[in-house]
Amino acid sequence: MTNDHDLAFLLKYRNVAWYEDGAVRILDRRVYPRKKVFVTCRTHQEVAEAIRDMVTQSYGPFQAASVGMALAAHQCADKPKDEQIAYLQQAATRLATARPTTEKKMRLITDGAELAAKNALDANQDAADAIMDYTLGFLEDKYYRIAKIGHYLAERIPKNGTVMTQCYADCDLGMMLRACKERQNEIKLIVPETRPYLQGARLTASVIYDMGFDVTLITDNMPAFTMLTKHVDVFTTAADVICVDGHIVNKVGTYQIAIAAKRHGIPYYCTGNPNSVHPSIHSVHIEERNPDEVLCAMGRRTAKKGVKGYYPAFDITPPDLVTGVVTDKGILGPYELQNYYVM
Amino acid sequence: MTNDHDLAFLLKYRNVAWYEDGAVRILDRRVYPRKKVFVTCRTHQEVAEAIRDMVTQSYGPFQAASVGMALAAHQCADKPKDEQIAYLQQAATRLATARPTTEKKMRLITDGAELAAKNALDANQDAADAIMDYTLGFLEDKYYRIAKIGHYLAERIPKNGTVMTQCYADCDLGMMLRACKERQNEIKLIVPETRPYLQGARLTASVIYDMGFDVTLITDNMPAFTMLTKHVDVFTTAADVICVDGHIVNKVGTYQIAIAAKRHGIPYYCTGNPNSVHPSIHSVHIEERNPDEVLCAMGRRTAKKGVKGYYPAFDITPPDLVTGVVTDKGILGPYELQNYYVM
Repeated sequence: MTNDHDLAFLLKYRNVAWYEDGAVRILDRRVYPRKKVFVTCRTHQEVAEAIRDMVTQSYGPFQAASVGMALAAHQCADKPKDEQIAYLQQAATRLATARPTTEKKMRLITDGAELAAKNALDANQDAADAIMDYTLGFLEDKYYRIAKIGHYLAERIPKNGTVMTQCYADCDLGMMLRACKERQNEIKLIVPETRPYLQGARLTASVIYDMGFDVTLITDNMPAFTMLTKHVDVFTTAADVICVDGHIVNKVGTYQIAIAAKRHGIPYYCTGNPNSVHPSIHSVHIEERNPDEVLCAMGRRTAKKGVKGYYPAFDITPPDLVTGVVTDKGILGPYELQNYYVM
Repeated sequence: MTNDHDLAFLLKYRNVAWYEDGAVRILDRRVYPRKKVFVTCRTHQEVAEAIRDMVTQSYGPFQAASVGMALAAHQCADKPKDEQIAYLQQAATRLATARPTTEKKMRLITDGAELAAKNALDANQDAADAIMDYTLGFLEDKYYRIAKIGHYLAERIPKNGTVMTQCYADCDLGMMLRACKERQNEIKLIVPETRPYLQGARLTASVIYDMGFDVTLITDNMPAFTMLTKHVDVFTTAADVICVDGHIVNKVGTYQIAIAAKRHGIPYYCTGNPNSVHPSIHSVHIEERNPDEVLCAMGRRTAKKGVKGYYPAFDITPPDLVTGVVTDKGILGPYELQNYYVM
C-alpha cells in the first residue's frame, strides 16, 4: 500500500468487510444506501451467518470469508499450533459453504487464507495479520484485473450509448463507468430493480447516479419492452460463476434479460474471468433461498397465507445467449473460454 | 336477473364497481385483499380519477366507466333534456379517456351508455336506471362469453399440468379455473408478482388459492428460469387490447414472458375477443404512468433521489409469440383473427 491509488483502494475495501481488533465489520447492503450500518461479527461463525443472510453480496462474500478467516485465527490464537490449524480448516469449510452456488470459488479464497495462516504459524508470526496481508494482496490483484475488464468493456459501448445491467455488478460496474468517464463517453444506464432484495434499485442505480451518469430504474418485468421502446446498445452483467463451458451463473433475471437481448439483437457481455473450478455448468448448485422473501416486499407480506413461494437466487444463462466474456486478458467468445488459460 | 346463476353474477359484479343512491362505489384493488375498502365517488369526474389512479383494473375500469355514466345521468337529472345529453357526451369523453391505452374500447362502452340514456330520455324514463340496465346487460353477455373462453382454454391444459399467468386476468382466470375444476383437472399455477402494483401477488395468487388450486408466487425476474427448472405447460394471460393483426397489449411483462415461453417451446394463449376498433397495433397508445411508482415499493422509496424511473403500464406482444387467441367462438391463430367476425 504505497501510493494514493492504493490508499483509495484500501479505503473502499475497508468499507465492504474488514477485520480489526477481534471483530469483522460488514457493510449491511440489505439497507444501504438508505442507511449505512455495519454488522459486527465477533466470531467467524457469525461471519458465515452474515454471508448466508446476504448482508453483503457480489464480491462482498468472498472478502468477508477471507477476513472471517483472520477472525477465526484470532479466535484460536491461544491454542497449540496443530489445534489452530485444525480450527482454521473447520472455519474455512464453514465460511466456504455459507452459500452453495459459489462454494467452489469461495474455497479458493479460504484455502489461500488457510495456507497464509499456516506459513505464518510455521514462522512464529501472527496468523490473523498474515491472513489480512493475503486478503489485501488478492483484493489488490482483483482491483487491477477489474480495471482492465472495465477498459475492455468500455471499448464495446458506443459513444453516448445506453447500457442495461442487472443486479449489482459492484467493482466491475464502477470500473466500466470510470473507463467511460476517461473516454468522455456519457453513457446512459437502465437498471432493473432486482426483486426481492432490490439490489438494482438500492445499490446499482445509486452508485451510477453518484458517479455522475444518467440512470433510469425499471421494474423486473420491463427489460424486454424497454429494449423495444428505448434504444439499448449493450446488456452487461457481472457473474457469480463463469463456467469454462460458457454458462453464466448470475442473479436470477439475467437469463430472462439475455433471452430478450438476443431477440432484439443487443449484445450481452458478461464481465469476469472463467472459473477453472467449474469446467462445466454441471458442478454448479443453484441456491434456493427462503420463499418468504418472495412473498414479501419491503418486509410486508404481499400474498395471502397459503400461497407458496419459489426463490432461486441465481439463474443460468447458456452460451448461445452470451456475446462475449470480458476477462482481464480481453474479450472471449463463450465457446472459447478454455483459451483464457493459454493467453 | 331471473335465476340463481344471474344472482351470483350480479353479486360478483356489484363488488367491482356499482352505482346506487347518487354514488359509485369501486372496490380498491390497490389494497385488496389485504383490506377490503371501497372508493366512493360522488361525481363521474371522481370516477374518471379513480380509473386513472388504478383503483380498479383488468375489466374493472370498463364497468366503472359504465356505472360512472349512470352517476353522470344522476348529476344532470335536473337539467333540460338537451343539456343532459350534452352533459352525458362530455362525461363519456372524460371517462373513456381516463386511461389512454384502452380509450377506444372504453368508448364503445360509454357510447352504449350514452345511447341507452338518450333512448330513456326520449321515452321520459330515468336515464341512470337505463344505463344500469345497459350495464347489467353487457356484463351478463360478457360473463357468458368468458365462460366459453374458460372452457376452450381449459381444453388446452394437460391433466394436472402447470400454468403460468401474468398480472390479474380477472374473470378469464376464474372461468378457466372453474372449467378445470369441472374437468377434475388439478392444475398448478405459477404467478409472477407484477410490480409495481403487485396485482399478481395480491389478486391473482389469492384468487387462485381461494379457488382451491396450488399456487406459487415468483418475482418478475424469475419466469424464464422457472420455465427451465419447473415444468410449465401453458402460459396464458388476458389482454387489455387484442388487435385484429394479432398484437396483444397487456400488463408490462407479458412480452418478456412470451419471449421466454417461445424459447422453451411453451405455448402462449391469450384470452379475449379481438377488438375491431384496433385493426392494427398502430392505433394503440401505450400509457406511461408516473415514474415514482417504479421508484417505490410498498409506498417506500427504493432508489436515491436523482435516479429516474420509467413506467410503461402495458407492453406489446407481437403475433409471432402468440400460439392462439382464445375467443368465445374458439381458439384462433394470431394471424387469422379477422376470421372471428365471420365465424
